[in-house]
Amino acid sequence: MSEKKSIYKPRPVSGFPEWLPEVRLVEQQWLDHIRRVFESYGYCSIETPAVEELNVIQAKGGDGGADVDKEVYVIERLHKEKGDKEARLALHFDQTVPLARYVAQHFNELVFPFKRYQMQKVWRGERPQSGRFREFYQCDIDVINPDNLPLHFDAEMPAIIWEILAALPGMENEKIQLRINNRKIVVGIVESLGIFSPEQQAHILRIIDKREKIPKADFENLIKKAVEESNAKVPWASINVFLKFFTMTESLKNDSIKGQLQALRENLRTAIDNETYREGLKELSFVLENLSHLPQGAIVADLSIVRGLDYYTGTVYETVFVDDPGYGSICSGGRYDDLASNYINKKLPGVGISIGFSRLFDRLRQQDKLPVGPVAATDVLVTLIDENERAASAKKAKALRDAGFNVEMYHKANNPKKQFEYAEKKGIPFVFVPKDGAPGVWEVKNMKERKQSSEQDWLKEMEKYYAT
Amino acid sequence: MSEKKSIYKPRPVSGFPEWLPEVRLVEQQWLDHIRRVFESYGYCSIETPAVEELNVIQAKGGDGGADVDKEVYVIERLHKEKGDKEARLALHFDQTVPLARYVAQHFNELVFPFKRYQMQKVWRGERPQSGRFREFYQCDIDVINPDNLPLHFDAEMPAIIWEILAALPGMENEKIQLRINNRKIVVGIVESLGIFSPEQQAHILRIIDKREKIPKADFENLIKKAVEESNAKVPWASINVFLKFFTMTESLKNDSIKGQLQALRENLRTAIDNETYREGLKELSFVLENLSHLPQGAIVADLSIVRGLDYYTGTVYETVFVDDPGYGSICSGGRYDDLASNYINKKLPGVGISIGFSRLFDRLRQQDKLPVGPVAATDVLVTLIDENERAASAKKAKALRDAGFNVEMYHKANNPKKQFEYAEKKGIPFVFVPKDGAPGVWEVKNMKERKQSSEQDWLKEMEKYYAT
Repeated sequence: MSEKKSIYKPRPVSGFPEWLPEVRLVEQQWLDHIRRVFESYGYCSIETPAVEELNVIQAKGGDGGADVDKEVYVIERLHKEKGDKEARLALHFDQTVPLARYVAQHFNELVFPFKRYQMQKVWRGERPQSGRFREFYQCDIDVINPDNLPLHFDAEMPAIIWEILAALPGMENEKIQLRINNRKIVVGIVESLGIFSPEQQAHILRIIDKREKIPKADFENLIKKAVEESNAKVPWASINVFLKFFTMTESLKNDSIKGQLQALRENLRTAIDNETYREGLKELSFVLENLSHLPQGAIVADLSIVRGLDYYTGTVYETVFVDDPGYGSICSGGRYDDLASNYINKKLPGVGISIGFSRLFDRLRQQDKLPVGPVAATDVLVTLIDENERAASAKKAKALRDAGFNVEMYHKANNPKKQFEYAEKKGIPFVFVPKDGAPGVWEVKNMKERKQSSEQDWLKEMEKYYAT
Repeated sequence: MSEKKSIYKPRPVSGFPEWLPEVRLVEQQWLDHIRRVFESYGYCSIETPAVEELNVIQAKGGDGGADVDKEVYVIERLHKEKGDKEARLALHFDQTVPLARYVAQHFNELVFPFKRYQMQKVWRGERPQSGRFREFYQCDIDVINPDNLPLHFDAEMPAIIWEILAALPGMENEKIQLRINNRKIVVGIVESLGIFSPEQQAHILRIIDKREKIPKADFENLIKKAVEESNAKVPWASINVFLKFFTMTESLKNDSIKGQLQALRENLRTAIDNETYREGLKELSFVLENLSHLPQGAIVADLSIVRGLDYYTGTVYETVFVDDPGYGSICSGGRYDDLASNYINKKLPGVGISIGFSRLFDRLRQQDKLPVGPVAATDVLVTLIDENERAASAKKAKALRDAGFNVEMYHKANNPKKQFEYAEKKGIPFVFVPKDGAPGVWEVKNMKERKQSSEQDWLKEMEKYYAT
């Protein structure tokens, strides 16, 4: 044990963040708050293993297939034994594949509609140079129901997300906005132009998706060009009607939900003669109607939101910082018709939304907006002035703990000054000190207000504090 | 989108457990309870990445080196690009290596004594046939302090663990016992026999470690043989004194802490003339004295506990089911002199204890002892009888939610019977139903007691319930 050891100086691993205790404490507050809101709407928690069979991840297929592979981390035992014929395992890169696999696997044991939340780390094998997180928390909420999923849930998602984002510690002054659309509206408009080929539709939707990132004239030209190339013989007038929708979207953004609904009805209801379009409009109206209790500006209909091109089929959501829309969406999701058809022969529509937790948390951390303070959630430090008083200090600490406080007892006899300094460094708000010449009597120092009071007065203050 | 897809039927991955929502709910209660107790003693939370550099994990070295390698999972991007020269990364297999690395890396930013808890999953590449978990939660608590760590913490650990284990939902009727020893006592006795070679000491400690697993006569013969082979010329009388300690340990187990202390003092204090021994005895006495508030039988001094042979240097802990000691320790730890010398040129003694969470949880699950009930933590279901009343139901749900309840609103208009069935299936205790012919008035059905009451009476009952 006493030989000289060589030292391997550890360094941060790029893309795998870790926080100091005082930042972790705020992270816990965020996670607790999100969980509390999810549960207040009756969602259950599930947790899936960090890994899935690589086959399960790759079964997802579709357009995303090749892209997904690039992000996948496989795991392997450092010393495999000969003859091991295990399935290859990979770390999950999101919580949607695990949810689909979970629902398929446990289908007969779940209560539907299956309302679940899931808050775990996911891993993406980004290139180390990318500056992106390779390990991060996602906070997902989804509802799945066989065959038919009531539209109720499409309206519940934004209410939940708004309640979460508006009250995250440090987010109070951030102006954020949930933007909602229904892909059927856009698909219907494209259909009404005579464009029915899925490829051509997808191409136009992809242009719409980047509308905010390019100049308006470029956007209009791209759309016109795409329509021309489709050979759908669309009259110019129709293209102009089409483009008008996006102009209207801009004007909606500062309106109340009621005002937005009215504008949608007046301008859109009869504008296009197409079944998909009408259905989308009806669904979007239902969702907006059921969100009218939220503050003005929280929710906007945005006809240019299309998201995840092959995945979503109805309602879609994005969430942006109003003052920094270029940062991208911090919380997105939507409705899908067919969650788990790769794993089970059933139609399982769902709607869900995902908070990109770590990216959002780290943004506020870097901007110094998090309420970073104490090292731990400790309320009281009980001092130990003399080793002979150890039992008395321990007894007091236990009594306070039994009363519901988080209590640290100082770890060795020392002068009070050292112990106050320690409380200061750790951000412990109250310090219990034995009263001179009065055994068993304690005084309480309020570290922030630098005043000392009797235990009785302090307790009264605490009761008042917790009653409000 | 509409082509036939091939289905990959998912199956459980051996060693990677996942629970149904109703079991997960109990798991959350366990994790919450453990966290609450950790925090009530003033410990801070940290969370480290799932991975460490393989170099960091292997720098640990020592006897464990080869063994550790067998358990390590390395991760790798499925499609590495050419020229990537990243350090190899591996999933952590415990939380002690990450703690050591964390303390070394952030040494200048931490407040010492550094009291931290950590509750994360760890991964071990066990052979798939082993039946062991390859992914599981550990709940660790440790204190680290440069150069000197007060003995205070050696006594704090068992108090914390007892408080946790005694109140875990489903554990109420399990008889468990924390067994405490100080390795210095055992090492001192071995020294007093004239055996000073670390290898020979380790050999004897290893025999002591398996004392409970072999017949008494075999144990005594193994000890005698080991002593003989050491060439220490130990008189038989001394060996018998040595063996007597373990007999005494048995007789201590049903005694109060006070009784145990007295027995230790009377039988041991002058039995051996050795400095290490005396120090160990003094430390063990201090620890026991400070645990005398725990119920009789909770804590026993057990001179045969030695644990992790090269790691621990003083106090050691084990926790067993009294009726099933062969199951092994569910919660172990101890004091170590030198946590992070592989990563930093500082002496960092610590003391800690680790709950093997998932193994314990799964034991109770398999024994049907967990209080498994509802699917989610939902208090109330608000019914929706008629689509025209949607706004009224949503308003009621929101009001209850604002009052602190977890509330689900039923997702589509339906007859009450269907909605009661749904509440039943999900284990939701209370269902709000609109009162016939009285708009805005609600009645509350108590699903368990099958009685209906007015909202006012229900609220009064709830207030009473939460006040106690």
